[in-house]
Amino acid sequence: MNYKIALIRGDGIGPEVVGEAVKVMETVGAKFGHSFEFTDVMMGGCAIDAVGKSYPDGTAEKCRACDAVLLGAVGGPKWGHSSDPDQRPETALLSIRKDLGLYANLRPAALRPAMAGACPLKKETAEKGIDLMIVRELTGGVYFGKRERYETADRGIEAADRMAYSEMEIERIGRRAFELARMRGKKVASVDKANVLESSRLWREVMHRLAKEYSDVAYEDVLVDNAAMQLVRDPGQFDVVVTENMFGDILSDEASMITGSIGLLPSASIGDTAPGLYEPIHGSAPDIAGQDKANPVATILSVAMMFRYSFQLPREAKAIEDAVDAVLNEGWRTADIAAPGQQVIGTQRMGQLIREKI
Amino acid sequence: MNYKIALIRGDGIGPEVVGEAVKVMETVGAKFGHSFEFTDVMMGGCAIDAVGKSYPDGTAEKCRACDAVLLGAVGGPKWGHSSDPDQRPETALLSIRKDLGLYANLRPAALRPAMAGACPLKKETAEKGIDLMIVRELTGGVYFGKRERYETADRGIEAADRMAYSEMEIERIGRRAFELARMRGKKVASVDKANVLESSRLWREVMHRLAKEYSDVAYEDVLVDNAAMQLVRDPGQFDVVVTENMFGDILSDEASMITGSIGLLPSASIGDTAPGLYEPIHGSAPDIAGQDKANPVATILSVAMMFRYSFQLPREAKAIEDAVDAVLNEGWRTADIAAPGQQVIGTQRMGQLIREKI
Ligand SMILES: CC(C)[C@H](C(=O)O)[C@@H](O)C(=O)O
Ligand SMILES: CC(C)[C@H](C(=O)O)[C@@H](O)C(=O)O
Repeated sequence: MNYKIALIRGDGIGPEVVGEAVKVMETVGAKFGHSFEFTDVMMGGCAIDAVGKSYPDGTAEKCRACDAVLLGAVGGPKWGHSSDPDQRPETALLSIRKDLGLYANLRPAALRPAMAGACPLKKETAEKGIDLMIVRELTGGVYFGKRERYETADRGIEAADRMAYSEMEIERIGRRAFELARMRGKKVASVDKANVLESSRLWREVMHRLAKEYSDVAYEDVLVDNAAMQLVRDPGQFDVVVTENMFGDILSDEASMITGSIGLLPSASIGDTAPGLYEPIHGSAPDIAGQDKANPVATILSVAMMFRYSFQLPREAKAIEDAVDAVLNEGWRTADIAAPGQQVIGTQRMGQLIREKI
Repeated sequence: MNYKIALIRGDGIGPEVVGEAVKVMETVGAKFGHSFEFTDVMMGGCAIDAVGKSYPDGTAEKCRACDAVLLGAVGGPKWGHSSDPDQRPETALLSIRKDLGLYANLRPAALRPAMAGACPLKKETAEKGIDLMIVRELTGGVYFGKRERYETADRGIEAADRMAYSEMEIERIGRRAFELARMRGKKVASVDKANVLESSRLWREVMHRLAKEYSDVAYEDVLVDNAAMQLVRDPGQFDVVVTENMFGDILSDEASMITGSIGLLPSASIGDTAPGLYEPIHGSAPDIAGQDKANPVATILSVAMMFRYSFQLPREAKAIEDAVDAVLNEGWRTADIAAPGQQVIGTQRMGQLIREKI
């Protein structure tokens, strides 16, 4: 098969890590008989610099003409938080999620055996293992509600954001979570704040309906404050965790840090039809950009997710994941994940070692 | 001085832990020459059972007639999440916060030396020490915004919550944070999501104004997703953390769990004039209620906060805190915080040992 891939190399270390991931795709293609056609799409801070807006016209169309999108990293301190949305790199991320209908953000947080020492939790907890998948709703809630700013008579300026969810939106992300749980540990924890929020009460009602339908999957409700605690206390208790956009942003980053190896974690953002978008969870790290120091593993593992979720090629996905584990097991590390005494290598060398194992 | 104290004993283990705290107050009173007059105020699940609503008429007035409020715990699975607000224990908590104007929730998360072994983080991190104070805005944001639920044409039912903040609300909580930082480590981290939310952009603007005014305090902005990560990675970096209501709910519970001893953590909720409210951060633990198993330390330390913040009696506060540390240093533990081999004692014995040290 021939696959068309949009590459959003982005800012900071984005271009370097995408470069290595592209080479890995070509290696996998050669081995398994697939070919790839790459199209560059500009978005983020580099687009602000080049054309004056972070999300240039036609970005979504270019992506829609492809089978999947690979993104490096977008943003950086250079572009600050302008009051003009066009000047904010984040606008590009939010717009592409909405325009491509990428309502399901899959954020695996697994402790790879070779990296157990990097886990910030106690040894006993790390030894029990961590392998959870956060399913974050990505196109609704307070991220996309009406924003307001107005003068009041007695309290100065007031600003507001609206957090809304419909049954349709909750049901489709819920189904994704239950389907994923069926292929994994058969457990779903749905995180909400139903003791306070009306949108959470609706969230919970819909999830309870789905839990009856997917009666082979164990289901529990967890309040978001409790979820934040449980991730620290005993992350091994979770399999699939499904939650709304803002809670998912917070909890998925907390879960990532708990694995202790942000440089290794991939993500997938998928919808029902449009191409899926795959990206490492780390940022653009402008301080080390262009120095062959960045860790390309998270982007390479994002390609594995692309093969699994967009192309239904689990064998190819596994070949990449096994190659990464083999290289880590041999003790090779980029600077961000190196323990004292370990062999530190650069971005390109790491990419090359992984390709050699495929 | 004579102080009038409203006691909201509440549900589950609430009455037991408040009972011990009251005895501690009397011991402190005898030693330092203060007297206390206690008034019982009914609220929460027990009030639903007794009078059909969790927040009986006149609750706020009764509290306002006192100098401070001590609360045990409110709620429990027995009362579920009814669609009638009067039938939800949480309604009482939210109402009393609003009615007494308790906009500042102070949530210390400190690792007491005797409890370092309970910290779920790696030994190296625990050894660096954790001593932070989360200042959570408690009467604004999505907790008190307009709630809606309506039918849509094509997406089923939709539910919404509104998250609003005014300059007045942000400024008063910000000042509390900067003032507290001046008495502590002189650092404020303000947590927001200014790259997405309009209310967070206003939040950040106001905080930046205050940071200029309090130029002797080091200030930084932290995005909420990053804050959730940093609390796991290196909680020792924080001194005072100030944030809005919902983020504060999540992060303060995460920070509590990171100390590993939820049974020890107190909290204060204060406003500008009304009596402050003091309560342990743990829940009502109905499974162990009435069995002399509950840990009264968090409630006793809440009394210390009351002495410090409502009565300006730091010496009395310190006497309580030192007594607690002395008892913990001797190895006495209630079941919830006992490591294998430690001496497990009950609620009343723990209270008595602390009183003996005062
Ligand atoms: C950059 C920001 C808008 C974004 C988000 O909050 O969704 C990021 O934190 C993420 O999780 O992808
Ligand atoms: C019970 C609930 C409404 C409450 C909150 O979210 O504020 C609790 O979690 C707390 O932190 O005091």
